[in-house]
Amino acid sequence: RRVRRMEVLKGRLRVRNMLFRELMAETLAMFVLMMFGCAAMAQVKLTRGAKGEYLSVNVPFSVGVMSAMYIARGVSGAHLIPAVSLSCCVLGRLPWSKLLPYSAAVVFLMYYDAIMDYSGGVLTVYGANETASIFATYPSDYLSLWGCFFDQLIHTFLLFPSDGGHRHDHDVLPAPADLVPPLATVVLMGISQSMSSNCGGGINPARDLGPRLLTLTAGWGTEVFTCYNYWFWVPIVAPMVGAVLGSGLYLVFVQWHLPDSEINETHDLQFKTKDIKTGFTMMVKTWINIGVKGF
Amino acid sequence: RRVRRMEVLKGRLRVRNMLFRELMAETLAMFVLMMFGCAAMAQVKLTRGAKGEYLSVNVPFSVGVMSAMYIARGVSGAHLIPAVSLSCCVLGRLPWSKLLPYSAAVVFLMYYDAIMDYSGGVLTVYGANETASIFATYPSDYLSLWGCFFDQLIHTFLLFPSDGGHRHDHDVLPAPADLVPPLATVVLMGISQSMSSNCGGGINPARDLGPRLLTLTAGWGTEVFTCYNYWFWVPIVAPMVGAVLGSGLYLVFVQWHLPDSEINETHDLQFKTKDIKTGFTMMVKTWINIGVKGF
Amino acid sequence: RRVRRMEVLKGRLRVRNMLFRELMAETLAMFVLMMFGCAAMAQVKLTRGAKGEYLSVNVPFSVGVMSAMYIARGVSGAHLIPAVSLSCCVLGRLPWSKLLPYSAAVVFLMYYDAIMDYSGGVLTVYGANETASIFATYPSDYLSLWGCFFDQLIHTFLLFPSDGGHRHDHDVLPAPADLVPPLATVVLMGISQSMSSNCGGGINPARDLGPRLLTLTAGWGTEVFTCYNYWFWVPIVAPMVGAVLGSGLYLVFVQWHLPDSEINETHDLQFKTKDIKTGFTMMVKTWINIGVKGF
Amino acid sequence: RRVRRMEVLKGRLRVRNMLFRELMAETLAMFVLMMFGCAAMAQVKLTRGAKGEYLSVNVPFSVGVMSAMYIARGVSGAHLIPAVSLSCCVLGRLPWSKLLPYSAAVVFLMYYDAIMDYSGGVLTVYGANETASIFATYPSDYLSLWGCFFDQLIHTFLLFPSDGGHRHDHDVLPAPADLVPPLATVVLMGISQSMSSNCGGGINPARDLGPRLLTLTAGWGTEVFTCYNYWFWVPIVAPMVGAVLGSGLYLVFVQWHLPDSEINETHDLQFKTKDIKTGFTMMVKTWINIGVKGF
Repeated sequence: RRVRRMEVLKGRLRVRNMLFRELMAETLAMFVLMMFGCAAMAQVKLTRGAKGEYLSVNVPFSVGVMSAMYIARGVSGAHLIPAVSLSCCVLGRLPWSKLLPYSAAVVFLMYYDAIMDYSGGVLTVYGANETASIFATYPSDYLSLWGCFFDQLIHTFLLFPSDGGHRHDHDVLPAPADLVPPLATVVLMGISQSMSSNCGGGINPARDLGPRLLTLTAGWGTEVFTCYNYWFWVPIVAPMVGAVLGSGLYLVFVQWHLPDSEINETHDLQFKTKDIKTGFTMMVKTWINIGVKGF
Repeated sequence: RRVRRMEVLKGRLRVRNMLFRELMAETLAMFVLMMFGCAAMAQVKLTRGAKGEYLSVNVPFSVGVMSAMYIARGVSGAHLIPAVSLSCCVLGRLPWSKLLPYSAAVVFLMYYDAIMDYSGGVLTVYGANETASIFATYPSDYLSLWGCFFDQLIHTFLLFPSDGGHRHDHDVLPAPADLVPPLATVVLMGISQSMSSNCGGGINPARDLGPRLLTLTAGWGTEVFTCYNYWFWVPIVAPMVGAVLGSGLYLVFVQWHLPDSEINETHDLQFKTKDIKTGFTMMVKTWINIGVKGF
Repeated sequence: RRVRRMEVLKGRLRVRNMLFRELMAETLAMFVLMMFGCAAMAQVKLTRGAKGEYLSVNVPFSVGVMSAMYIARGVSGAHLIPAVSLSCCVLGRLPWSKLLPYSAAVVFLMYYDAIMDYSGGVLTVYGANETASIFATYPSDYLSLWGCFFDQLIHTFLLFPSDGGHRHDHDVLPAPADLVPPLATVVLMGISQSMSSNCGGGINPARDLGPRLLTLTAGWGTEVFTCYNYWFWVPIVAPMVGAVLGSGLYLVFVQWHLPDSEINETHDLQFKTKDIKTGFTMMVKTWINIGVKGF
Repeated sequence: RRVRRMEVLKGRLRVRNMLFRELMAETLAMFVLMMFGCAAMAQVKLTRGAKGEYLSVNVPFSVGVMSAMYIARGVSGAHLIPAVSLSCCVLGRLPWSKLLPYSAAVVFLMYYDAIMDYSGGVLTVYGANETASIFATYPSDYLSLWGCFFDQLIHTFLLFPSDGGHRHDHDVLPAPADLVPPLATVVLMGISQSMSSNCGGGINPARDLGPRLLTLTAGWGTEVFTCYNYWFWVPIVAPMVGAVLGSGLYLVFVQWHLPDSEINETHDLQFKTKDIKTGFTMMVKTWINIGVKGF
C-alpha cells in the first residue's frame, strides 16, 4: 500500500513540461553548489582560519560544482550558467524557484550564531569584521572597476578552452564522458587558486547574484549592491563576455581542425552561443523584474 | 598440505548466514573508517599542528570512507549508516561486534604516549588540553542545542542529493559505478571543509557513538555523554532526519523526472527509507541495551 | 543564415597544413598552461600568502598541464615540450605564435594593479619585493650554476620513467589512455612539491623562456637574462638532457623486457629522441633569431 | 641503421631470466618511489617550511608509490614490499642493484648545497638542525621501543584491509584494475596524514633501510643505526607483522564470504603469505650480508 501511495504522489508531482523539469534539476544543482561555496567561506572566515585556510574555500566550491553537474546532467545537461539566469528570470513567478536565495539562507541560519559571535552583531560590508564576503564576492581596494571587469572576464576566458578539451565528444581521445564533472572540478580548483585574489572567483553569475539578494534582505542592507561603485554587475556580465571570447579561442585554434567534426562543431557553437545569449537576455529581464516588482 | 589446512580453517570460519556476513563486512568497513578518522584527529591535535592542520583531518576521514566502501560493497553494499546501527544493536551479543569501539581503542593505544604527553595525564572533555574531541565530536561554545541539531541535520541533507547524482544506476550518464567510492570521498571532503566548524562533521551516527563509548570507559568518564546538555544524541538523530529530507529533495527535484525509471525509483526509495527506519529502531534498542545491561 | 556565415568563416580559417594545425593546438595548450602557472605564482606572491601558500602554486601548475594535454592531444598528441620549441622557433614569422609571451602578458595585465601595489612600482629581479619570479624561475642564492644544472636535470630524469609507466600502450595493464592527463598532473604535483625548492620547477623550456621574454620588455630589463651568471639557459637545456637520460633508464630497466613489444618500443624510442633533437635544434635557431632580429 | 644499432643493443641488454627482469622493474620502481619521498622531506625541512608543509611531504610520497606501481606492474606485478627485500638481498652481488641507496644519493647530491646551508656543515641525527630524518625515519622522544613497534605495526595492519577492498579481482564491483595505483595512493596519503606523527610513515622496509645505508656512509655515521636504542629494525620488522595480521583480518571478515571465489582466495592467500615469508628470510640474509661483508 505504501508503494502505491508513493506512486500516486509521484504521479501528481511529476512534471511533464520539459523546460520545467530542466529548471528544477538545474535549480537543485545550483542550490547544492551555492551551499557548498557559501558554507566554505563561512567556515574559514568565522573561525578566523582555525578550521580551514584559503585552500579550504577552493575545495568545497569545486566539489559543489561536481555534485551540481552529476545532479543535473541526466535531466538537463547541467549547463549551470544559462540555467542560473533562467532560474533568476522566473524568480517570483514559480514558487520553488525561490530555492536559490534560500540556499544562502540555509547557510546563514546554520552559521547564524557564529556570524553574530564573529561580527559582534553588526552586519557590515567593509572593515575587518565584515561578513558580506561570505555570501557574495567583493573586489580588493586597489582595483579600478575596469580592472575588475578584465579580471572577471579572464576566468571564463580561460575556463572555456580548458573545459573544451575534455568535454568535446569526438573520438579523438577525449576525457571519458562520465569523468567530466571531476575533471571540471579540478580545473575550477586550479582557477580559484591562481586567479581569485583580485575579486574572488566569480565565474557563475547566479552564484553571485543569488546570495547577494539574500544579504540585501537579511541585514546587510543596500550597501551590498552600491559598494565599490556598484561593482555587483561585474561578476554577472564579465564572465559572459569571457565565455564568448574563450569559446572562440578554442574553436579557432583547435576544434575547427579536428578530423571529421563538420556537423558537431557548428551545432556545438550554435548551442553554446544561444545559451549565453538567452542567459544574457533573461538576466536583463530579471533585473527589471527585481527593480520594478521588488524581490 | 598447508593449502588444505587453510581450506579446513576457512570451511569452519565461513559464515553461511547472509545477515551475519553482511554485518561482518560492514563491521570491518566501519573499523577501518573510524581508525582513519580518530587517528587523523589525534595526529593533528597531539602535535599541536606541527604534523598536520585542519585539512589533514578532512583527508584521512574521507579516505577512510572510500576504503570502507570498497571493503563492504562486494558483500553488503556498503550502507555504512544503517549497518552501523545494526552493529551497535548486536553489541554485546556477538563477540566480534565489539570491534567497533575497539577501533577507537587501537588509536588510543597507538597514541597513548602522545596523549599522556599532551594532556599531562589528565583526560578531560573541556579546556585547552582536552583530548576527548580526538574520538567523538563536541559543539562550539556559542551554539544552542537546537542550533547544533540544525547544523548536524544539514550535513546529510546536503550529502544525499550530492550523492544521489552519481549513485543512481540509470543509463543517463551516471558516474561509473566503480568510481562511486572516490567520488563520495570527494563530496565528503567538501562537506567537512565547509560545514564542520560548528560541531564537527557528524554524518555517521556510529562513527560518533562507538568512539564515545570507548572514551566513557578509557578514563574520560561520564562527562562525554553529559557535557553540553547531553548533546551526544544530536550527531545520532539529526543526520538521520537530514538524510530523509535530503533524499526527498533529490527525489522530487530530479529522480522522478528521469526517463524510464518508473520501477527503479520506487524500489530505490523503499530501500532507502527502510534502511533509515531499521537503523533508527535498532539504534533505540541499542541505547536501551546499553542503559540496562551496560556496555 | 548565421550557420552559413559561420561555416564560410570556418572554411576560410580552417588550416589545411598539418604542421600548422598542430602548432596552433600546441600553442593554445601552452597558452593555457602558462596562464595557470604565472597567475598562481602571482596570486600567492602578491597577497604575501594571504590567499594561497606554496601548495597553491603547485596545484594550478599541474592543472594547467592537464588542461593543456586535453586541449592538444586530439590534434597533435600534446607533446608540449618539443612543441614549445617549435613554437618558439617560428616566433616572429607567424603572427598568432606571439600568443606565447602574450599569455604571460595577460597575467601581467590581470595582476597589474596588484604588482604595482606590491612592488611600490619598481620592477626588480633581486630583493624582498622582487616580482620577476612570478613569470620565470630563478635559483636560490646558495647554489652554484652546476648545482642548478644538476637540479634541473633531475626533474625530467624522474618525470620520464614516472610517466612511461602509465603512458605506454601495451596490454599489460597500463593506465587508461583517457586518464593519462590527470595522472601526469598528479606526478607533476609530486615533483613540484619535492624538487622545486632549489631553482623552481622548470621541466618545460618554453614555460620558462616565454614569460622571461615578456619580463624583458615589460619593465624588468635585461637583468632577467643576465642575473645569476646568465642562468636562463639552465632551465632550457638541463630538462632536455634529463629527459634523454630518464627515458633511457625506463627503456633499459622496464620497457625492453615487456612481453611482445618488439616493434613499439623501438618506434617509441625513435619518436622520442627525434622529438628532443628537433626541439634542441629549433631552440638554438630561436636564440639566434632573437639575438639577431630581436624579439 | 640507427634503428638496427639500437636493436642490437637491446638484444644484448635484454634480460631473459624472469626473476632478473622482475627485480630490475621493481628496482626502478623503488628508485622512483624513494627519490620522491626523500626529496619531499628535504624540500620541506631545508626551506624550514617556506616551500612546503607537512602536507607537502605526504603528497609526493604517495605519488611516488603510484608511479612505482605503474612502472613495475606490467613486468612483476609491483609488489614493492617483498621486492624491496629481494633487492636488498642481492645487494652487492648484482651491480645494478646498488641503484637503491643511489636514489637517496641522488637526492643528497641535488640538495647538497641546501643541506650544508641548513645544517652549517655538521650532519647530525639529534637536535634542531638534524638532517638524518630527510632520508630515514626516526621516532619521537616520548615513545618507548615497544610503543614504536606497535605504531609501525598498525600502518600495514590498516593498509592491507584498505587495499584488499579495491584490489581483489572478483566480479563483485571491485575498483577498476587500472585505477588501483591512484587509489592505493589516496589510501597511503590518508595513512600518512593520520598515523605518521609518532615515528613517521614506515610501511615499506626497503624505503627505510636503503636511504639509512646511504646516511651511514655519507657523513652521518653509525648513529643512524644505533640511535633511539637501535630502533632501525622496527620499521623493517613491524610492518611485516602488521601486514600478516591485516591480511588475516580482511580474509576472515570479507574475502572468505565473497561469492564464488573458492579458488582465487586460497591462491591469493598463498601468494601473499609466501611473499611476506620470502621477504622476511631475504631480509635476515641481507643483514648478515651487510654485517659480515660490509655494504
